[in-house]
This record gives sequence, structure tokens and C-alpha cells, in this order.
Amino acid sequence: MTEHHNSLGVAIVGFGTVGQSVARLVCAGAHPSLRLSHICNRQVDRKRAETSWVPSDVVWTDDIEVVLSSDTDVVVELIGGVDPATDWTRRALQSGKSVVTANKQVIAHHGAQLLDVAAEHHRYLGFEAAVAGGIPIIHGVREGLAGDSLLRVLGILNGTCNYILTRMEADDVAFDDALLEAQTLGFAEADPTADVDGFDAQAKIAILSAVAFGRQIDVTDIPLRTIRTIESIDFMYARRLGCTIRQVARADASDEVSDGVRASVQPTLVPLSSALARVEGSRNVVVVEGAFGGEFVFSGFGAGGNPTAVAVVSDLEAIARGIGNARHDRGLVKARVVRDFVAPHYLRFVVSDRPGIIAALANVFSGHGVNIDSVLQEPGWSKTELPFVVTLEACDSSAVEQTLQESAAFDFNVRPPLWMPVLVSGERHQ
Amino acid sequence: MTEHHNSLGVAIVGFGTVGQSVARLVCAGAHPSLRLSHICNRQVDRKRAETSWVPSDVVWTDDIEVVLSSDTDVVVELIGGVDPATDWTRRALQSGKSVVTANKQVIAHHGAQLLDVAAEHHRYLGFEAAVAGGIPIIHGVREGLAGDSLLRVLGILNGTCNYILTRMEADDVAFDDALLEAQTLGFAEADPTADVDGFDAQAKIAILSAVAFGRQIDVTDIPLRTIRTIESIDFMYARRLGCTIRQVARADASDEVSDGVRASVQPTLVPLSSALARVEGSRNVVVVEGAFGGEFVFSGFGAGGNPTAVAVVSDLEAIARGIGNARHDRGLVKARVVRDFVAPHYLRFVVSDRPGIIAALANVFSGHGVNIDSVLQEPGWSKTELPFVVTLEACDSSAVEQTLQESAAFDFNVRPPLWMPVLVSGERHQ
Repeated sequence: MTEHHNSLGVAIVGFGTVGQSVARLVCAGAHPSLRLSHICNRQVDRKRAETSWVPSDVVWTDDIEVVLSSDTDVVVELIGGVDPATDWTRRALQSGKSVVTANKQVIAHHGAQLLDVAAEHHRYLGFEAAVAGGIPIIHGVREGLAGDSLLRVLGILNGTCNYILTRMEADDVAFDDALLEAQTLGFAEADPTADVDGFDAQAKIAILSAVAFGRQIDVTDIPLRTIRTIESIDFMYARRLGCTIRQVARADASDEVSDGVRASVQPTLVPLSSALARVEGSRNVVVVEGAFGGEFVFSGFGAGGNPTAVAVVSDLEAIARGIGNARHDRGLVKARVVRDFVAPHYLRFVVSDRPGIIAALANVFSGHGVNIDSVLQEPGWSKTELPFVVTLEACDSSAVEQTLQESAAFDFNVRPPLWMPVLVSGERHQ
Repeated sequence: MTEHHNSLGVAIVGFGTVGQSVARLVCAGAHPSLRLSHICNRQVDRKRAETSWVPSDVVWTDDIEVVLSSDTDVVVELIGGVDPATDWTRRALQSGKSVVTANKQVIAHHGAQLLDVAAEHHRYLGFEAAVAGGIPIIHGVREGLAGDSLLRVLGILNGTCNYILTRMEADDVAFDDALLEAQTLGFAEADPTADVDGFDAQAKIAILSAVAFGRQIDVTDIPLRTIRTIESIDFMYARRLGCTIRQVARADASDEVSDGVRASVQPTLVPLSSALARVEGSRNVVVVEGAFGGEFVFSGFGAGGNPTAVAVVSDLEAIARGIGNARHDRGLVKARVVRDFVAPHYLRFVVSDRPGIIAALANVFSGHGVNIDSVLQEPGWSKTELPFVVTLEACDSSAVEQTLQESAAFDFNVRPPLWMPVLVSGERHQ
């Protein structure tokens, strides 16, 4: 695959929005080294009738075996889901084809094995499109930052959450209304679990950990916390603290965790001045910190047919140029997920008011060596459903979880308390 | 150079701050595919005495011929300046060595020829470090955005200007004081011409034009306007317009200029909400707009020993992995520089006040079909040295230059009027 062929045969498997964008880009004339060879999809006749612009010499099929037994050079896997995509990817590599995929679940769960299969067969497995669609973060880290030793990655990797949270922030919309709006506009799926509960970002941060640090972590070990519990009132209090709220995915491989990767996906207070706060709507941002180059920020569109297709075609061009997978991509070091972290924290209670609540909570906190930084309570709320906020000085997240477990038992709580870490302004992560 | 050697021999030519950072990175153990072979510098004995950590098998020399006649694999050129660096780079390529350089002037003026020489000899010419030091913009565009068709690039590419302008913005410091401060802190050179008058950013935007669009423009044709004429008062008026002031370098290859590249380096009003306004101190930012992927933002440290060394070592790793120069890099299309552009404008006058000044100016403007959008005048200034601002609706920059030439002739001017374009919020470039 290191020699330049006349042109590279490309089979697209899964001909939905992204697949059609890839086909358009490949056929548009700007990529003479690429040639569309196959389109594989269910109900292929209907698809064919809808896309009369596809060149007539392209083979249409609903049978993956036709693609796998052909002599095309690259399979672009866009069917989504772990099965049968993982098996098809493995078989394509074993049959001597390179594979380009936008499938974050396949790469997060089986990427290490598949990269080994690719290396055995001297083929390329490209997955730029699997993380932050339009942001060239995989190539940026692999080729552009190959000279650095990367310590930390954090980012806003899920456009649906970011759309919902920026809507809640801007117009005081409730979570359910913002979600409904996102669904109506096509930014969120009917079942939003993968997005709002963090599974989507979990897969992406696991992939980034592998690419940035060469450390393979078990994706399901990365702790998740949903954004469903965020209320409008939390944005009001966040603003009082000079912050807003974002779903932040983090991975940290700095020396203090040399045997693992500290990782999480959770709603987080981020300073209004930080790059993370300024990402509006469905855009993504990735902040990478290197030991030598300091902080790099990449931002762009994280999803959508065309941005994702650009990532796929960039991988195809890499194959056409004979760029192989990186050193890191083979023999990833297995690493455990470290769940605890130290940060200031934001706790929001909703209580039926009575004397002694703060004293009761303060007792619990001091019992765990956790120091209160401030207590915030806006006027004008009902005494029977009174929200207030306690901020904690930097402390271990496990201590916060313990204090919250105890605090939740008090019968003055109208709803379970909410907690979020705070990214401190002036920290290296801003 | 496509096979992996046991390790790649690296000769560093120019052993100053960046060279020493490169040597440290190469020798630190994280890059087993790289091996420091030579260090070439004037007064090599003194340098050697200062850097006892360099491995003893490295050859020290003050004679470039020793490097060029050796069998080392890569020459890292860090001497700066057009001569003799251009000649040394060419000879290194002709002698079968790849070259990695941080030298923006060599690449901006002679990059196209040198890339041809590299291609003839099947060698790599890497220049990630020549533009926006620590930001992996060259690899990001080449490998990460290879699938897109890029339309526009704009950025803050000169950290010295950005340091000076952010200082003026934050603390109402005069230009001369901010410059002196930058010089004291080592962010600006004794002769700041290359930075503040735009020559540095001019070379960088010419290189980006070649990499992003495949279009080679004559670097000296890119119009420059200095930041020396910016005063504290301009930041006050900019703020009233929801903006701040930055040295912005732009290149535009969208369809309207199919036979050229619209390019400039000049102080510009940028909306406070834009990515360009948020770049503090000596950091750089590059905004790239693709036809398919939309807007991508890259930011990071644009200079400094370690960030620049990361860029150099990333190029060395690319060579070790057998990544060649891109399709674009050979046979660049020659293109002319288009100087005119359409934008709203900011004009600042300092006048000896008397009746009829606005009327006189309005006459000149209307004579050129230029519409006044607003007139701003803060109270409290001396009548004999009165600053005020006129903003113009979007109009051709050449019309603005003509009106200013005429306006400057009025004897009420105490100083020549200043003009800057305004990047409009909501435009694609924000």
C-alpha cells in the first residue's frame, strides 16, 4: 500500500448521509487519487434511484461479501454499531483492504485488536471521523504533535449535549425543552441516551487516550455522569461563579497516574473565559496539553455529513499517500482507568427549608475533611422547594461522593443533590 | 527514505534556543527512531562546553561541509535568514538528505523551488516549525483536512504583535511602552520591524496559502500595514463597537478570486466574541475555512524554544514514518496577490476642531460612493488634538484608501488619519 496506484478503489459500506457526502467528495474531481468502486447498502435499488449522480461504473450491492471478495483497495465502514461492523472491518483488513471508519464504538471497544490486524496485513485502519468529526484531531495529534509528549486531553466531544447546554444557558430553557428542540432540529436522536448520558463521549475519549498517550483503557470503565439532572437554576449559579456548564470529557496521563489514565465524562463548571465555554451549539473543541508545546486547542464541527465526510476523505488521502498507522497504534499499553480526581466542586441542593440545614451539611462535610468555600442562595424561591448552592475547596472527588451519599439521606432534600467539578481558571486546562 | 532505518541520523545546524530544545527532545528517549548525529554552529567549543548533556558520540563542527558530506539522514536548519540558509537547504537535499526547517523566510521566498528539489531527490522538506511554531497547522491542513477544499485562512501569526496589542488593550498602555515591555521580556527583538510592520506574518501567510490552496504567491506582493500607528484611544473606540484590535493575516482563495489569492497583513477590528479576539499574549490562532467542513480553529503557542522544537521533531517523526510531502507541495500553481477587499471600515482622525469637519469629510466619502455608518466622539479631549472615529458601511478597500488620501490633505488633521477594516460578527470568518 506504500506505492501509489493509478487510483485507489473505494467501497462505501452504509450509504446514508455521511456515505453520500463521502461519495460526492470522492466523485467531485478534487481527489484524482480516489475512485469510487462499490456502494453497499440495504435496499440498494431505492438508494440507487435516489442518487443518479453516482458514476455508472460503480458496483451497487446489498451483499458485503461482494465487497470483501472484490479487489477494491479500501472499505469505508459507515454502518454504525458494534456488530456486524467489527467483524466486517476485521475481515476487510484480513482480505488485504485498508479500512476507514467513522465508527467510534468499534474503535473504542476493538480498536487495539483491529490495529494489530491492520499491521499484520500491512494495511491502514483510519478513524479520523470517529472522534470530533470535522476536527482533524487524530492526524493533528499523530503527525502534528508527534514531537511532544502529551499529558492531558480534554474536550467537548458531543455536539448534542453542547447544543442542549448552550440553549439552556442562552435562553433559560429547561433540559426537556432543549432536548425536544434538539430532536426536532435533528441534532438529537429519538433515544438520546448515548449523547446525554455520556456513552458517545466515553467512546471518543477512550480513542483519544489511545492516540495521544498510547494507552489503551477499557472504555466501559470510564465513569459517566448524565447531563439530565442539570436545571436552569444551575446556569444562574454557575454565572455567579464566573462559569457555565458543559459536558466535559477528560483523559489525563501525566506522571502522577503513570500506571493509568485518569478519565471521566461529566457535566462540569467551566470558566466563561475558557475555550470550553466559548464553544457554541453543536461545535466540538479538543484541548491537548503537551509537556513541551503547552496547550493546543482544536475546534470545529463535530458531526454532520460533510464535516464527517471530510475526515473520511482525509484518511483516504492518507492511504493514497502511503501514510501508515503510527508507532503508537500497534502494541498499545494497557492501562487502568483512574476515577478519582481533585477539584473544587459545585453542589446544588433543593430543600424544604427549615433551620439548621447548613449546619447539618457542614457537619457531614467536615467529617470527610471537605472545606466549604461559599454558600450561595438567590432570593425569591419557594420555601418548600428552595435551591441553594455550596461550593467546596479543591478536594478528592471520592470524598465529595461520600459526603453526598450522606447528605442525600437528610429528609429536607426535595430532590437528590447535584454535584459537578469546577475547572479552575488559571489552571493549565483552561 | 520510505524504509525505516534502524534510526534516523539528525544533524542540527544552528544550536541556539530552538536547536538545543530539539536536541533535548531527540535525546530524551521518547523518540527511539531519531539519533542526534551532528551539531553545527559557530564557536562550537563554547556551545559544547555549555551543553554537557549532549551524548559523546555526536560530531561537533563549525563547518557546514562536514554535515553536507556526512551520511546523516536529516539536516535541521535553524540558522535563520535567507542566506546562506537557502543554499545550504538546497545542497542538503541534493546530497540526499531530508531537511527540516523553522525558517519562514526561506520557505516563503524559495519554498516552491526547494520542494521541487526535494521531490527530484525523493527527500522530504519539513517546515511545520516555520508557521505558528507550536500549532500543528501544516500537518493539520495537509493530512487532517486533505479531504476538504479550503477557501480561506486567517490568523494571528505574530506573537510579538499580539503581546503588544493585548497589553495595550488590557492596561491602556501606549504602543511604545508595550513594545519596550515586550523587548524587556524577550518577546520582541531590538529591531521590531519584522514583527510590528508585518514582514513576519507576511511570510507565514504566504506559506499557508501554498499549503492550504496549492497556490504560490509572491510573498513581497502581500500588502502590509504596520501596527505602530495604533493608539490607546483606538482600543477605547473599538470596545464601543464591540471589538478589539489584532494584527490579522488573511488569505482567501474562494471562487471570486479564482485567478489569485486575496491576501493582507494588517491591524484589524475583530469582534470581542471572535476566536481572534480571545487569543491572549504571545499565543497564535489560525482559522481555516473549508467548503465542506466549515470552520476549523487551531490555537497554541506560536513561538518559543520548546513549542518550535515540538514542530521540528514532529517533522522528524514524519520522515521516520516515511510520510512524504503532499501532492500540493509539488507543482504549486502560481497566483497573483489580490489586494482589494470589501469590508466595513474604521477611520480615526485626530483634528484641531472647528466647524464643518464632518461635512468636509462626508463630501469626500460620498464622492467615492462610500457610506458613513456612524460618527463616534468621546467627550473630554482637547479641542486642539481631538480624536474621533468614523465607521463606514462595507465598501471596497481601494475606495477607502482614495478617500483617505484626499481626507489627509485637509489642514485640520493633527496627525494622518488611521484606517482599519472591521471583521463583521456573523461573517463566516468569525
